[in-house]
Amino acid sequence: MIAVIGGSAPTPEEVAAAEAVGRALAKGGAVLICGGRGGVMEAACRGAKAAGGLTVGILPGPDRSEANPYVDIPIVTGIGVARNAIVARTAQVVVAVGGSYGTLNEIAFALQFGVPVVGLGTWEMRREGHPPVPIVYAATPEEAAARALALASNSLLGQFDLR
Amino acid sequence: MIAVIGGSAPTPEEVAAAEAVGRALAKGGAVLICGGRGGVMEAACRGAKAAGGLTVGILPGPDRSEANPYVDIPIVTGIGVARNAIVARTAQVVVAVGGSYGTLNEIAFALQFGVPVVGLGTWEMRREGHPPVPIVYAATPEEAAARALALASNSLLGQFDLR
Amino acid sequence: MIAVIGGSAPTPEEVAAAEAVGRALAKGGAVLICGGRGGVMEAACRGAKAAGGLTVGILPGPDRSEANPYVDIPIVTGIGVARNAIVARTAQVVVAVGGSYGTLNEIAFALQFGVPVVGLGTWEMRREGHPPVPIVYAATPEEAAARALALASNSLLGQFDLR
Amino acid sequence: MIAVIGGSAPTPEEVAAAEAVGRALAKGGAVLICGGRGGVMEAACRGAKAAGGLTVGILPGPDRSEANPYVDIPIVTGIGVARNAIVARTAQVVVAVGGSYGTLNEIAFALQFGVPVVGLGTWEMRREGHPPVPIVYAATPEEAAARALALASNSLLGQFDLR
Repeated sequence: MIAVIGGSAPTPEEVAAAEAVGRALAKGGAVLICGGRGGVMEAACRGAKAAGGLTVGILPGPDRSEANPYVDIPIVTGIGVARNAIVARTAQVVVAVGGSYGTLNEIAFALQFGVPVVGLGTWEMRREGHPPVPIVYAATPEEAAARALALASNSLLGQFDLR
Repeated sequence: MIAVIGGSAPTPEEVAAAEAVGRALAKGGAVLICGGRGGVMEAACRGAKAAGGLTVGILPGPDRSEANPYVDIPIVTGIGVARNAIVARTAQVVVAVGGSYGTLNEIAFALQFGVPVVGLGTWEMRREGHPPVPIVYAATPEEAAARALALASNSLLGQFDLR
Repeated sequence: MIAVIGGSAPTPEEVAAAEAVGRALAKGGAVLICGGRGGVMEAACRGAKAAGGLTVGILPGPDRSEANPYVDIPIVTGIGVARNAIVARTAQVVVAVGGSYGTLNEIAFALQFGVPVVGLGTWEMRREGHPPVPIVYAATPEEAAARALALASNSLLGQFDLR
Repeated sequence: MIAVIGGSAPTPEEVAAAEAVGRALAKGGAVLICGGRGGVMEAACRGAKAAGGLTVGILPGPDRSEANPYVDIPIVTGIGVARNAIVARTAQVVVAVGGSYGTLNEIAFALQFGVPVVGLGTWEMRREGHPPVPIVYAATPEEAAARALALASNSLLGQFDLR
């Protein structure tokens, strides 16, 4: 279970990247987790469905109709953006594509939970006196997906209990 | 998407009933939603898997390892029993089997959200001056599943937008 | 810290009762916890403020402006009705006045958390084979407030750690 | 209502800074909002109480006993670190002192909600193609508190509806 996170108002390049990541993750056997809405989330789901994958959308609002058309399993949380914590916890690896403050927020949750993060054209952050942030930056969608799949495999062998 | 809710310390009769409900729902084509843990939740998942169904467990804690072995898609909320609201919202129909205060709580959320509730050996409640509570009480697991499947079909044709 | 819960569309009698309960709780030294909105919540806050009390409103939405005018400390959760769990956990005793499914839901959370519940014209519930529900039913607002204050005092001496 | 956020394992300098910020905010008339636990949260509460202020702790766990001894109003959420969203929404201004990934997360929520952020020895972040992040960085605790109080006053006159 690998999440793709990113903004709801992406650039055309980010849309293409998210779709390519979703497709490659599905080909690699991952279930796609996302926030269920438009933009990067929809592009990643569309890519995953094109490759025959299964998609889960963890929605912020109270209504399943806000899911994008490529979500197979809409989870209707009704808890608003606090659902970002659920996206980050449910994933075994998170891939961030572009994004604004919501994406920054989900990256921070993943780091806090010890969930590996792969970044593609996304946030960089630092604090004086703090160890470097362990985000794996990728240069292409293909590299991002390959890194995420490798990290998910490792997590299967290690601390994570994937079912 | 139909939820089966009920306690984590059920009687043997409730275990058998939950398993039968899970099996019948999966045969009827439903995706099973539940709280992901033991007792009634595990029995319903076991029944659904025996019939080739797909199961989603919406977990309260921070760790996917608390999911029962029959959960296909563990959603790791980390928000404690507040996740009951997510179980009730994500389902198009809720089937309550026995249960204690957690089940009472999920029934109340479903009623509040307008999600139909089918009851099997579960809570009854009334308040003077309040309209009767629209729970459909069933006498057997088979009746409970049949009623739930019919209500889910209706919801597809009506107010609910099932994907 | 004592919660008053109840519907947003109460009868005039329920409004008067909630206001009397709020006033008596504040006179007794309690901080009033509620859901922060209209109806029973507003009436209880108005009563508490009339007696010089402090009021906390745990709001469901994303905006402090939905608080009623008698809330001193608005807590802006943005998590929708899942905030009912926070109302029930934050209180040391819950007083339910009338109410619909949201109130039933909060009562169930309080029962699940072991928080004592005092009822005034509110829900009754039973399940065959389950122990009786330990709600203390009061006949008047004055009795409800007195019972709640006594239960809160007991909780101070016992399992609860009130600051 | 102004939040002070920061880590649970601060340096001695961060403890001193958080205490000074809490004291100055309380002197300026603010209600202190925080996550209710140890470290920076406790230091800020201690400072606020020393200046006669009121403190609110929005706790992640299910038990009020995890509050630090300087919390006047413990809000017991039980929703884990998803409560970070409530801290950020409830505040009219957020002051971040040092901090790790939880603090980064709360900063991101505040930015997402449009709540002004004042930083003191905390995270810096950037994304290519994204506008600069509007955090106001302060050099001393006194400057951080003064900036936060000024921003809260502005918010009173503007978009925010403080009660």
